[in-house]
Amino acid sequence: MAGNPAVGRAAVSAAVNPDRLWQRHLAIARIGATGRGGVNRQALTPGDAAARRQVLAWAAARGFAASVDAIGDLFVRRPGTDPAAAPVVSGSHLDTQPTGGNFDGIFGVLAALEVLEAAEEGHIATARPLELVIWTNEEGARFQPTTMGSAVFAGALPLDTALDTADGQGVTVRAALAETLAATPVASRRPFGFPIAAYVEAHIEQGPILEATGMTIGVVTGIQGLRWFRVEVTGEEAHAGTMPLARRRDALVAAIEMVHGLRELTADPTDTVRFTVGRFEVQPNSPNTVPGRVLFTVDLRHPDRQVLARLGDRVEAVCRAQARGCAVEVVETLSSPPTAFSGVVMDLIRAAADRHAMPHADIVSGATHDAKHLAGLCPTGMIFVPCERGVSHNETERAAPADLAAGARVLADVLVELANR
Amino acid sequence: MAGNPAVGRAAVSAAVNPDRLWQRHLAIARIGATGRGGVNRQALTPGDAAARRQVLAWAAARGFAASVDAIGDLFVRRPGTDPAAAPVVSGSHLDTQPTGGNFDGIFGVLAALEVLEAAEEGHIATARPLELVIWTNEEGARFQPTTMGSAVFAGALPLDTALDTADGQGVTVRAALAETLAATPVASRRPFGFPIAAYVEAHIEQGPILEATGMTIGVVTGIQGLRWFRVEVTGEEAHAGTMPLARRRDALVAAIEMVHGLRELTADPTDTVRFTVGRFEVQPNSPNTVPGRVLFTVDLRHPDRQVLARLGDRVEAVCRAQARGCAVEVVETLSSPPTAFSGVVMDLIRAAADRHAMPHADIVSGATHDAKHLAGLCPTGMIFVPCERGVSHNETERAAPADLAAGARVLADVLVELANR
Repeated sequence: MAGNPAVGRAAVSAAVNPDRLWQRHLAIARIGATGRGGVNRQALTPGDAAARRQVLAWAAARGFAASVDAIGDLFVRRPGTDPAAAPVVSGSHLDTQPTGGNFDGIFGVLAALEVLEAAEEGHIATARPLELVIWTNEEGARFQPTTMGSAVFAGALPLDTALDTADGQGVTVRAALAETLAATPVASRRPFGFPIAAYVEAHIEQGPILEATGMTIGVVTGIQGLRWFRVEVTGEEAHAGTMPLARRRDALVAAIEMVHGLRELTADPTDTVRFTVGRFEVQPNSPNTVPGRVLFTVDLRHPDRQVLARLGDRVEAVCRAQARGCAVEVVETLSSPPTAFSGVVMDLIRAAADRHAMPHADIVSGATHDAKHLAGLCPTGMIFVPCERGVSHNETERAAPADLAAGARVLADVLVELANR
Repeated sequence: MAGNPAVGRAAVSAAVNPDRLWQRHLAIARIGATGRGGVNRQALTPGDAAARRQVLAWAAARGFAASVDAIGDLFVRRPGTDPAAAPVVSGSHLDTQPTGGNFDGIFGVLAALEVLEAAEEGHIATARPLELVIWTNEEGARFQPTTMGSAVFAGALPLDTALDTADGQGVTVRAALAETLAATPVASRRPFGFPIAAYVEAHIEQGPILEATGMTIGVVTGIQGLRWFRVEVTGEEAHAGTMPLARRRDALVAAIEMVHGLRELTADPTDTVRFTVGRFEVQPNSPNTVPGRVLFTVDLRHPDRQVLARLGDRVEAVCRAQARGCAVEVVETLSSPPTAFSGVVMDLIRAAADRHAMPHADIVSGATHDAKHLAGLCPTGMIFVPCERGVSHNETERAAPADLAAGARVLADVLVELANR
């Protein structure tokens, strides 16, 4: 039934249905829609559950079986001809930032589903099963850290640590996950880290490079390294009108100058370093009271392990140098070295793009993805497609239907090829 | 009955009861206590109402009549011998910052009440009535602007504008005031701006100067000028890992550099300029999203009208110079020129301090006070007493019982003197 792999590959790729793929993006975009073009569908909220139910309904309509692991990672399986073979897995996430877009994560889920559907419609058997995966809490917006589900799956994060994590309102992952699983009943349970033959994730680039260089397909060579820091500055509240500046311990002034100093530290003429202060909170946050306390986060990324180490190791010293009488606590909350993807998978992506005459280029992923954790378990790769002006984590995030279809066709080629090896 | 004014003045001053004054501070400190040594008794909250009820109960125990105006300013009257004479008024406020101390405002209320009590206990009549006033919403923490009650009383702020002001939860002054008045029933209504012979307000310094120079009494020569600005920076949300820094419109980076630039603008080797960014809010406030929006406030003060004008007029340009591709809106939300107090009242304060052999010095008020608005209506002055390390707008705010008593004795001298003129 498997026949000539090249034929199967071509038939699946040809059966990819661009209109279905696009309509499904629109359908998912309605779940958690903000009314301003974007979505707020943070991890393990009712919106996340509703999106999972929609994907499960599409899977059920094809008779694909679903299973779930203990952190809520959701799997949808199309069986292969070899019952003993490990699956080829593809997918991404359905959760979003608080003001997220309609393609980040969702595209990888719907592209993988489209490949399963296309194989079914094309009546193409594969030796290995093809599985779609939806990873829990990739964004890390509501519950830190990011890529929680894949981290637990891969053994990089203990399950209990993840389950005990609380959001800003004190709700734990344990409680929110129980609600989500109750709202998306799946009987079959999956263990963590089961054998996977290969993992390929499709995603919008979330950066401007493919669009700017006229490329349709990004062959992702790896993921840049990431270090997160949480900086707490404790000064002393005082009256804004009476306390001479020389006698103040102003937590905001100290924090402002820390960020200013960190910008100098990370200044890079090649514009490769990614430095972001995304969270910045002031207490008591009253116009005429000198702030007594500031909390801010640092997100630092670089593809070169040594540069990332050198810059990250200086963060605490730069902050302390601007303490200005305040107490300073710097905690590294996340550290993720750069990841290199499988040369075999990269070659398959390049070959597929060439066969379809799609312009492609190698690219380093600026964002972290679940694929990072899979790279330690099996041959892993990622396929990027362009998004408008590189805007992502933003309600105006946009991708062209033709680019999404192109990415799904390349993904189909690669998955079928891997599933017949 | 008025007899020799000097005898009356001395008798009232001698009847000031330091222990009663201190115990009343402790009693008021229990209302809205945070459990960390301070209070949260923001304007027109149930705590504010409870403190008003306590003062009304003390006044009623002496048979002093109360009255209230349409913005909730509360008056307690000890009659004079001349029924046609305008009163001498003294007081301050009971409302606090969200993490406020036990002396800011409260001292001026309790010191004035103590003078009324002392006159009663000493059986000393004054020609003019003595009135205690409690001004509504001096702090401006919950409802902006500060000194709302005295501003409306003095005609500097239209009543309807004040009543329509909403707090962060959308509750208006109109609604909160109605609740407060219902909880503190006072039958007699007072018009705005009724004739006042003189106004003297006692207050803790809220700065470190008296303590550092060993002074007990500050003869306040005036109030430094104040300008408030609200700065809104609108950039574009983007993914922290993928968007090159050169392509970002990062509202936080722009705001940080604006504050950095404003610090350079306001740098002052004489440490006279007061520059504070007390409120600073970031959206969406997620560690891995480039901030799309920042709102911050600027509080700028100086005793010299021309310096304040020059610096304040540069705020918008300094912010715009750091826009970095973001939209910038700068709105001046409050402007209050420096205030000069009455030479007559200052002389009376100096003479009283000399009679009591209390070390005193002239001082400019760094904070705004309700006395600012009274200065346009009648001869006005303020008496400062030291507070520990100048810490105020802080739960650890402290003042010594002996200093509070000293301030109340000087206030008694000055009020009785003014009430017999």
